[in-house]
Amino acid sequence: MTKFRIEKDTMGEVQVPVNVLWGAQTERSRNNFKIGVPASMPLEIVYGFAYLKKAAAYTNCELGVLPEEKRDLIAQVCDEILEGKHDDQFPLVIWQTGSGTQSNMNVNEVIANRAHQLAGNTIGEGEKTLQPNDDVNKSQSSNDTFPTGMHIAAYKKLIETTIPGIEALHKTLESKSKEFASVVKIGRTHLMDATPLTLGQEFSGYASQLAHGLKALKNTLPHLAELALGGTAVGTGINTPKGYAENVAGYIAKFTDLPFITAENKFEALAAHDAIVESHGALKQLAVSLNKIANDVRMLASGPRSGIGEISIPANEPGSSIMPGKVNPTQCEALTMVCAQVIGNDVAISVGGMQGHYELNVFKPVMAANMLQSAQLIGDACISFDEHCAKGIEANTDVINKQLNNSLMLVTALNPKIGYYKAAEIANTAHKNGTTLKEEAVNLGYLTETEFDQWVKPENMVGN
Amino acid sequence: MTKFRIEKDTMGEVQVPVNVLWGAQTERSRNNFKIGVPASMPLEIVYGFAYLKKAAAYTNCELGVLPEEKRDLIAQVCDEILEGKHDDQFPLVIWQTGSGTQSNMNVNEVIANRAHQLAGNTIGEGEKTLQPNDDVNKSQSSNDTFPTGMHIAAYKKLIETTIPGIEALHKTLESKSKEFASVVKIGRTHLMDATPLTLGQEFSGYASQLAHGLKALKNTLPHLAELALGGTAVGTGINTPKGYAENVAGYIAKFTDLPFITAENKFEALAAHDAIVESHGALKQLAVSLNKIANDVRMLASGPRSGIGEISIPANEPGSSIMPGKVNPTQCEALTMVCAQVIGNDVAISVGGMQGHYELNVFKPVMAANMLQSAQLIGDACISFDEHCAKGIEANTDVINKQLNNSLMLVTALNPKIGYYKAAEIANTAHKNGTTLKEEAVNLGYLTETEFDQWVKPENMVGN
Amino acid sequence: MTKFRIEKDTMGEVQVPVNVLWGAQTERSRNNFKIGVPASMPLEIVYGFAYLKKAAAYTNCELGVLPEEKRDLIAQVCDEILEGKHDDQFPLVIWQTGSGTQSNMNVNEVIANRAHQLAGNTIGEGEKTLQPNDDVNKSQSSNDTFPTGMHIAAYKKLIETTIPGIEALHKTLESKSKEFASVVKIGRTHLMDATPLTLGQEFSGYASQLAHGLKALKNTLPHLAELALGGTAVGTGINTPKGYAENVAGYIAKFTDLPFITAENKFEALAAHDAIVESHGALKQLAVSLNKIANDVRMLASGPRSGIGEISIPANEPGSSIMPGKVNPTQCEALTMVCAQVIGNDVAISVGGMQGHYELNVFKPVMAANMLQSAQLIGDACISFDEHCAKGIEANTDVINKQLNNSLMLVTALNPKIGYYKAAEIANTAHKNGTTLKEEAVNLGYLTETEFDQWVKPENMVGN
Amino acid sequence: MTKFRIEKDTMGEVQVPVNVLWGAQTERSRNNFKIGVPASMPLEIVYGFAYLKKAAAYTNCELGVLPEEKRDLIAQVCDEILEGKHDDQFPLVIWQTGSGTQSNMNVNEVIANRAHQLAGNTIGEGEKTLQPNDDVNKSQSSNDTFPTGMHIAAYKKLIETTIPGIEALHKTLESKSKEFASVVKIGRTHLMDATPLTLGQEFSGYASQLAHGLKALKNTLPHLAELALGGTAVGTGINTPKGYAENVAGYIAKFTDLPFITAENKFEALAAHDAIVESHGALKQLAVSLNKIANDVRMLASGPRSGIGEISIPANEPGSSIMPGKVNPTQCEALTMVCAQVIGNDVAISVGGMQGHYELNVFKPVMAANMLQSAQLIGDACISFDEHCAKGIEANTDVINKQLNNSLMLVTALNPKIGYYKAAEIANTAHKNGTTLKEEAVNLGYLTETEFDQWVKPENMVGN
Repeated sequence: MTKFRIEKDTMGEVQVPVNVLWGAQTERSRNNFKIGVPASMPLEIVYGFAYLKKAAAYTNCELGVLPEEKRDLIAQVCDEILEGKHDDQFPLVIWQTGSGTQSNMNVNEVIANRAHQLAGNTIGEGEKTLQPNDDVNKSQSSNDTFPTGMHIAAYKKLIETTIPGIEALHKTLESKSKEFASVVKIGRTHLMDATPLTLGQEFSGYASQLAHGLKALKNTLPHLAELALGGTAVGTGINTPKGYAENVAGYIAKFTDLPFITAENKFEALAAHDAIVESHGALKQLAVSLNKIANDVRMLASGPRSGIGEISIPANEPGSSIMPGKVNPTQCEALTMVCAQVIGNDVAISVGGMQGHYELNVFKPVMAANMLQSAQLIGDACISFDEHCAKGIEANTDVINKQLNNSLMLVTALNPKIGYYKAAEIANTAHKNGTTLKEEAVNLGYLTETEFDQWVKPENMVGN
Repeated sequence: MTKFRIEKDTMGEVQVPVNVLWGAQTERSRNNFKIGVPASMPLEIVYGFAYLKKAAAYTNCELGVLPEEKRDLIAQVCDEILEGKHDDQFPLVIWQTGSGTQSNMNVNEVIANRAHQLAGNTIGEGEKTLQPNDDVNKSQSSNDTFPTGMHIAAYKKLIETTIPGIEALHKTLESKSKEFASVVKIGRTHLMDATPLTLGQEFSGYASQLAHGLKALKNTLPHLAELALGGTAVGTGINTPKGYAENVAGYIAKFTDLPFITAENKFEALAAHDAIVESHGALKQLAVSLNKIANDVRMLASGPRSGIGEISIPANEPGSSIMPGKVNPTQCEALTMVCAQVIGNDVAISVGGMQGHYELNVFKPVMAANMLQSAQLIGDACISFDEHCAKGIEANTDVINKQLNNSLMLVTALNPKIGYYKAAEIANTAHKNGTTLKEEAVNLGYLTETEFDQWVKPENMVGN
Repeated sequence: MTKFRIEKDTMGEVQVPVNVLWGAQTERSRNNFKIGVPASMPLEIVYGFAYLKKAAAYTNCELGVLPEEKRDLIAQVCDEILEGKHDDQFPLVIWQTGSGTQSNMNVNEVIANRAHQLAGNTIGEGEKTLQPNDDVNKSQSSNDTFPTGMHIAAYKKLIETTIPGIEALHKTLESKSKEFASVVKIGRTHLMDATPLTLGQEFSGYASQLAHGLKALKNTLPHLAELALGGTAVGTGINTPKGYAENVAGYIAKFTDLPFITAENKFEALAAHDAIVESHGALKQLAVSLNKIANDVRMLASGPRSGIGEISIPANEPGSSIMPGKVNPTQCEALTMVCAQVIGNDVAISVGGMQGHYELNVFKPVMAANMLQSAQLIGDACISFDEHCAKGIEANTDVINKQLNNSLMLVTALNPKIGYYKAAEIANTAHKNGTTLKEEAVNLGYLTETEFDQWVKPENMVGN
Repeated sequence: MTKFRIEKDTMGEVQVPVNVLWGAQTERSRNNFKIGVPASMPLEIVYGFAYLKKAAAYTNCELGVLPEEKRDLIAQVCDEILEGKHDDQFPLVIWQTGSGTQSNMNVNEVIANRAHQLAGNTIGEGEKTLQPNDDVNKSQSSNDTFPTGMHIAAYKKLIETTIPGIEALHKTLESKSKEFASVVKIGRTHLMDATPLTLGQEFSGYASQLAHGLKALKNTLPHLAELALGGTAVGTGINTPKGYAENVAGYIAKFTDLPFITAENKFEALAAHDAIVESHGALKQLAVSLNKIANDVRMLASGPRSGIGEISIPANEPGSSIMPGKVNPTQCEALTMVCAQVIGNDVAISVGGMQGHYELNVFKPVMAANMLQSAQLIGDACISFDEHCAKGIEANTDVINKQLNNSLMLVTALNPKIGYYKAAEIANTAHKNGTTLKEEAVNLGYLTETEFDQWVKPENMVGN
């Protein structure tokens, strides 16, 4: 049976399980918001808070409003949190107050209670060594800490997971592009046979998509680097010492080793989260690109006997519980499912972002959670697709050559020689009769065999 | 040079082009909302207004608050509007006030001015025969007329365009399903070769999707049949005579020959447009289905020489400006583009629907316009796809047979005989060696040629 | 250090942690799909599998293709799974193969290994008592089991969580509608003062929205009740005994006590998941409704001194970490964040649903996960909002009366007496002068004080 | 009765209305795609084609593959098209082939036939002076011309309409921010009373949002400046003379006076339209911002007597057809409806963008149409909102002062003096008793009247 201790807040007493580090407001939230999976608030947000609480303590101390002892206690607990020692002390859900106040208080309470322990006391006994609101939350409000934590978490995730994942896949696609530089194959437009290109050119398009997507994503980082901290309740910075905002952003930049700065306009930084909308917009663009790429790969690899079959992809696991020997493009499937999720998340973020009211947007947790999920999924899925699929792609040159030489669209090479209309007549006749272009070209009297062989060379139709 | 006359409203005088039937408020809106394409407010909405203005006149007369002469004048102009005689008198855009007040007033003003003419007067001269607000708009508000006009327009469009379009395509797919009932072909899962089915079964799935979609769409009609009229300004029905709401819905049902009824709850009917959300949700479902169907058709028809090529679709136009003789699945492309639009429109409608405030949703015009566009596009695109593509689909039995007999997944028939694991071994070996299942089955000693021929019959693998 | 045992599948040997119940294919999937949070495949899907595996065992036995001993072993493990005894044996993620094959095999492997234990053996030793593919998966394919499990899970969630949640909130709104039936208040359209209604009428609109939403949701249940099981690999039912599909659906209906039936068309049931699209469409409609309701509630409760303040909602927790004494509409915020998520999830589901290829849709896990999340969140959030907010709503009659009597829009009552134009003049003048309607009505000479008092009675302006 | 002439293409003869400039393929498309509103393909795309056809003619001539006479004829017709002289000669719809081939041919045919006239001939008589495919379309394919036309159209629209619209509104918001710099008012978070800020600060947040949005939009321009032209059929540039791609991009840049360049990777440029996805993503971000801003404005302006009422906005038109004297925030409504549309369009564009196949994305027209609509609507709506609403915003200082001084959240200023918990007690007591902060602060004995007056000064709570 759970034992309880009493914690208090401005509304009165609350029973809290005796051993946990959290306090009254966390417990109220646990009871008032039983929505979905428990503890769904991403830990990355909690870690973002740990960085900023530590930074705030340093700044408050430096600006003379917090004693060194308190600064050091706060910093010590923050470091413990960042080492993952208190992951189970953050039981709250995404679906709480839209400012994330309760998660801010959860962090404040954990820091205060853990500091009480570190100072040699027992939680629940005696005057708290640190006050959650007056000390840990000093010069802060949920309204500026949550968006700050959200930006820290999102920025770190993009830098540490998303971008490396995309870059790894991009590198492989570039390398495949070179590997397949001389594999001439039939092109397909409208899913129909078209003029030739090389398999390397096809892959260069994929690589180019990701390069553009990466650039687009990096374009969004400066907005995301702007931190709300210092705006406090409504953006005015009430109850902060002079110089606080710039100073605290500097500490955060130092502790995270990332180029965070204080937001030029704190009113926007609390009331709107367009930076999240902007960065996620780039993730959505990448999802659009990745869906195209993964879809092409599975179509090109389809078969083995009754599909397109121009490339082979690794066989990683049995593909069917009923059809023996079946192998499927499962990495493509995982990746395209991720893309579907990210495109959906983008709408959730837009819907949240558009509904700020006055001085505060109260869709912070849902925006943060969707942002972090998308960033994680794209990064992970790129790595997974890269390692278990892209790197192992091989060209099936037999199939490729057969389909290439069969193609009626090689006739396009004749346009500059005999004009579009006669060329069309050749292709249409060969299609109707099931014959070759050369046969019909000669039959129709538009050119000689020698001319045909000279003019219609797939390897000359793929550009320089 | 345009000549002007003076029209008045409660804010004062406005110059209006001398020959137009509209009045002061329409002109103000024209000047104040220069957003996008002029006259973008759908004419279907105007016609919906014509039905309801006539019905309101009849009801007002029957309930003793409007003289017969005024009723008849109003009805006569409404009939002219419905005959399309005044289509150029409705110059307003979607992007006006969110209640559609200005389009309601546009209709009121046109009716009043045209009635003035019909009564033998010249517009702009003398006391108006009918007052736009006091007579034409009697017992009405924009707040209940616009949603009523929107429901009339949407319901009619679904009945007259969308549902017939889907039904026509459904019928063709059903008929193709029967036509192809005995064409056994390879199945494909994960885009990879799988066990066989008939082409008819494949098409039966498409038909079943549309049948479910039609049912889903029809499920939404009762909500759409509920009319807001009678709620007036905020849903209370202020300034309407007793019995008005039921009576006027009856007249609308009579004039349109559709089963409209008065909404049980007028407060919802003004403040939320969940009926539009609901009906468009079904259109979105149909878009999802149609995208799947059209995509399958173009993949099955891909080639002609280096694709799947199991079916042929009609060649309706030259497919390429540079590749002679190319034919493309253009109807599939038009249809899938429509699906993309409808899926986007669904989000626009959700975003509009979710943001009602207190007694009024002020996203009415954008919701109506998206609803009508989607309903039109799905209906038209189904007809177009049906007539220019689906009806002309033919099975390429040569290709189908070749791919079927080649397939390694016929091995699945052996599971009940020799178990999944040995069957897998046969398939894997044949794949590796580029041989046939029969060869490897016998080589591996798991069964005899005779057993193979008896057990592995594609035509026995497609169910009853 | 983890100890391992060897498990095998058709691709060879795999090292598996010695104590787990899963086998080779699960382990391959764990290694090949490190995407996002581990074990993210919803347990509800696993439980859906447990129902169907047990049902399949019963049907297989009844139709003579599985011995009773095997049936009973399978059933026993399924019951254990349903009791939650093996929740930690399902470590796979959503982002795997799009058919969910690996989760199907996860269940098959756990059942086979656990059955081996129940039969008195040690996992990894001796011939398996049950074969995962040949026995546990008999007459099944991932392609028909996953959608079956997905429908079971979704249907149960809607019945057990979503619908009760909405019904509870609906009941409260209905009861508030009656409680506030005689509280006459100012109406607001375009966020601007309008004619009066009762607070009860306002709440009746909310209740009506949910009633319509519930009806829409229930309309989708028949499609969701259709089960794919019996279609096996491509919909033809290959390797199933005669009568299997109907029989197994009967057992599932019996075991779950829900009205499941076999899908009339199995080709649709594998290749498209329009039933999920359809049901989630209704959830999205409910999200649109709930967003409107929650938004109204927080605007009506805004203040306490500088907002609308017409109602009070419960103060559940301190609202601010920096502003003492602040109380916020946190339940409204949690609910509207849920709405944003559901509207986003709807797009993810559409994107997944539209991309089926040939005989199989390979977006099953992402569609299932989004469906289940939305169903859970809406159900939970309705209960949370109901208990911690809606039930405690109280009318602030002082504020309501003050705002009502101040309103210029009471002038609307004069339209039938003096016409819209003179009434507008009165309102405009009072607005300009900051006076009352009565003062200006009399000043302008349009009516007497007595007439005003007789004609302008808010309580007469709210309908019958 | 329409008279017809005969036009031919590679599929045979087609009857075309005798006086039109278009030819066989346009007429086929008109007949085969009766979907939605006729002539819905945006004219901006046609103009984009006119620029590129002229540029291609110049390049072809310069590189020796087209005689000067043909170049000049082509250029002359293109100039006529750009002057709007042939707007009625482009009757095709968006919902045609997904490559836009038919619109490319429409332009080719119109140029060829009009050139025939300019050369002194009668359309339909004699050998065509220019061949649509061999001359006008020389060194081109639909596959590279349509995306080039689409980029030209989108870029021009953004530069000429969207960005100026946003900049105008941004300028007004900045100027209002300065105008209201000293108007101290109550802040609101969670829609509830919070600490003060200035009205100018509130507007500075809006201005900052638009500044960030503009920056984000401009970040996307380099990708949009990349032109596909020179890729021809599949990206290889088949049938183009050496140096063509760079040269033709140069001419387009010259003719449009915009910084267009040739796309580095033509395979991406045909097969994916991530540049459109990217630019529209920025428009969607702006829609999110504008929705927030417009929504705040209408809430701040709500009333006139029973709302927030802190600002006044211009009264542009009568607001109600039934409530006399009502004025509504109609520009906010138009703008937020535009935002809903743009957010929906973003999904349509994502759905189109993600579904490219192999060498070609065949959702070009729907992507282009949505992009152009959004760009137009945002530009127009910003101008409309700016001129008819934002510029006329005035502060209602009486209301603002009353609400400010009433506020309980001024207590926040006491946190650094007496701590959060005592401050909360003061606020809660004043709320409960309906008294002032000062009364309760003194009653509770936490500070003196003098201290209160000294410490609680709203004007000191709004930052530096």
